[in-house]
Amino acid sequence: MRLHKLKELLEVKGLKCAIITSPASIFYLTGYDYITTDIGNFVALVYCDGIATLIVPLLELYRAQDKVKEIDLVAYSTTLEGEKIIKGSLKDAILNFIKENKIGLDIQNTSSIFYNYFSKFEIIDLSKDISIMRSVKDQEELELIKRAGDITTAAMKIAQDKLTNSEISEKYLAGIIDMTMRTEGAEDYAFPSIVAFAENSAFPHHIPSDKVIKEGQNAVVDIGARYEKYCFDSTRTFLKGENTEIKKIYEIVLQAQLEAIDKVKEGVKASEVDLAARRVIEKAGYGKYFIHSTGHGVGIEVHEYPSISPNSDAELKENMVITIEPGIYLKNKFGIRIEDTVIVTKRKPIVLETTFKYL
Amino acid sequence: MRLHKLKELLEVKGLKCAIITSPASIFYLTGYDYITTDIGNFVALVYCDGIATLIVPLLELYRAQDKVKEIDLVAYSTTLEGEKIIKGSLKDAILNFIKENKIGLDIQNTSSIFYNYFSKFEIIDLSKDISIMRSVKDQEELELIKRAGDITTAAMKIAQDKLTNSEISEKYLAGIIDMTMRTEGAEDYAFPSIVAFAENSAFPHHIPSDKVIKEGQNAVVDIGARYEKYCFDSTRTFLKGENTEIKKIYEIVLQAQLEAIDKVKEGVKASEVDLAARRVIEKAGYGKYFIHSTGHGVGIEVHEYPSISPNSDAELKENMVITIEPGIYLKNKFGIRIEDTVIVTKRKPIVLETTFKYL
Repeated sequence: MRLHKLKELLEVKGLKCAIITSPASIFYLTGYDYITTDIGNFVALVYCDGIATLIVPLLELYRAQDKVKEIDLVAYSTTLEGEKIIKGSLKDAILNFIKENKIGLDIQNTSSIFYNYFSKFEIIDLSKDISIMRSVKDQEELELIKRAGDITTAAMKIAQDKLTNSEISEKYLAGIIDMTMRTEGAEDYAFPSIVAFAENSAFPHHIPSDKVIKEGQNAVVDIGARYEKYCFDSTRTFLKGENTEIKKIYEIVLQAQLEAIDKVKEGVKASEVDLAARRVIEKAGYGKYFIHSTGHGVGIEVHEYPSISPNSDAELKENMVITIEPGIYLKNKFGIRIEDTVIVTKRKPIVLETTFKYL
Repeated sequence: MRLHKLKELLEVKGLKCAIITSPASIFYLTGYDYITTDIGNFVALVYCDGIATLIVPLLELYRAQDKVKEIDLVAYSTTLEGEKIIKGSLKDAILNFIKENKIGLDIQNTSSIFYNYFSKFEIIDLSKDISIMRSVKDQEELELIKRAGDITTAAMKIAQDKLTNSEISEKYLAGIIDMTMRTEGAEDYAFPSIVAFAENSAFPHHIPSDKVIKEGQNAVVDIGARYEKYCFDSTRTFLKGENTEIKKIYEIVLQAQLEAIDKVKEGVKASEVDLAARRVIEKAGYGKYFIHSTGHGVGIEVHEYPSISPNSDAELKENMVITIEPGIYLKNKFGIRIEDTVIVTKRKPIVLETTFKYL
């Protein structure tokens, strides 16, 4: 329960009421974990005049009761009524609990549907405040991220072994990786596993295909376990056999990654960390092939604040968890990416990966 | 490429311009498949005065070029510029291509961030039209859903075998299921696999835990493969050994499911299908334990239009693909759910599952 953090934020903002609809932020504040696969089945946390009410669809009432003990809980249903059930839509339920004309809203994580519910209210955007709040992790969160890291590392080692010792397809390897993460204790994946061989690895977000790896080709494996809601994010590029060009580009990316990690420290700007990686790649003449940011925050969501990018205005703080993942992508040839998840400290960052990083 | 469908819709609506930001609808219309895991990295399709432009983040430019041949494609970047790259944000890029004051928008699938971009335009909501458009599948789509169904069925058979012949935990079984779907050809999962034993199965959206199944307990397995973007959705409830109460409830749910399937036909209202299942469960005295809708459409997203629920105003049409999945959930005891994905026809529906449905 971190509801006191919302309370404190509202005091600072001079607000009495806030509505949170992002499942990740609701989990952060209340411990209730909702998986959004249902159209129309949204959840909302209404905090008003010191009273928090969690509103869930009826099919989630039992689970929510199991997870959340300390705050009021109601379910909405368009068909049934009864104890703890509000007959009507989520909109009816939410409006029922709002007692003020001015409300705080995490606009960035609010669907337009919700936004339209609140047209008659004065809206104060809390997006950035909530992002920043979630970016600095407490000890409990750090432990869960480390555990997700151990699980991911176990799967990465298996991936390396399979790539070295067998002829395997992208889909098949993704299957083995996923099963390993589950059996090692993951409750889910932080994102769909990326396994990309040879020219497919030039696409940063490639989707696993039936392609089989051959001698002299590389494999980009970008995976992450989810453990007790917390995500991990790790990328390794493997080389099967020998390939001089791949090795050359790999060394550039590795150098960029190490220099960026070296910059990570409380008080440093996220843009400076990005620049450290970008400068190495630009100097080597591959600047226009580094087509994404250097990294991002990781937590309940795999991509969180802060963005480690050239235009970021974020400043690193102790116990932020971020990725450092530069890459070079050569279309029709191959791509190289190396990614670690690290904890920001007042001195050297703590790198959570333990797998071998050298080709 | 189904861009002509958007063109036809705009003609009917008297509109010249539409902006589509839902990755699923963009895939449906253009064939470009974007996976949204990145904060800030959104995609948009702007269709204006007969010209379609697909706008992607720079890291997706190569992949998009590979997938989409027939429409204009640009990437936005806050750092790099060059051919096909617009320097600036997605907002700058979108506004650049809008030539009218009145625009069509799929509000339901538009984040509030986008919505705010368009405050100076007159907005016409296309949410329902696009949902209905996507709900009736063409032959190509039906084939992909069937293939996803075959993959899911293979995994379900393995699940049944493992449950019968071993002592297994929810997480471990989910791992085996996921690997089977991958090795059978799935590119991803339609949703996080649900494996729930005994009292955990009273939560419709349980997340796999370390719980091991025991004799006399049931297992709810709700899984779906994704194949070439198309989803499948299937639930079976298995019983390990004997349990009279579970068998009794199972028979009620099965009867409800069969009666609902029996109702499925072009021209029938979705609410009538729901009622057919609900009536059986109510008659048996378990109405208040059937805490969700009877089903939903399935396609590029696992939950699509139409909702098969009491308040739905949808009418079934030939080649809609829907699930029929009634359930009874007894808190602290167990839950039972049986789900098939079916194709609506002018006569009897085509049930796509082939796995054994009787305890």
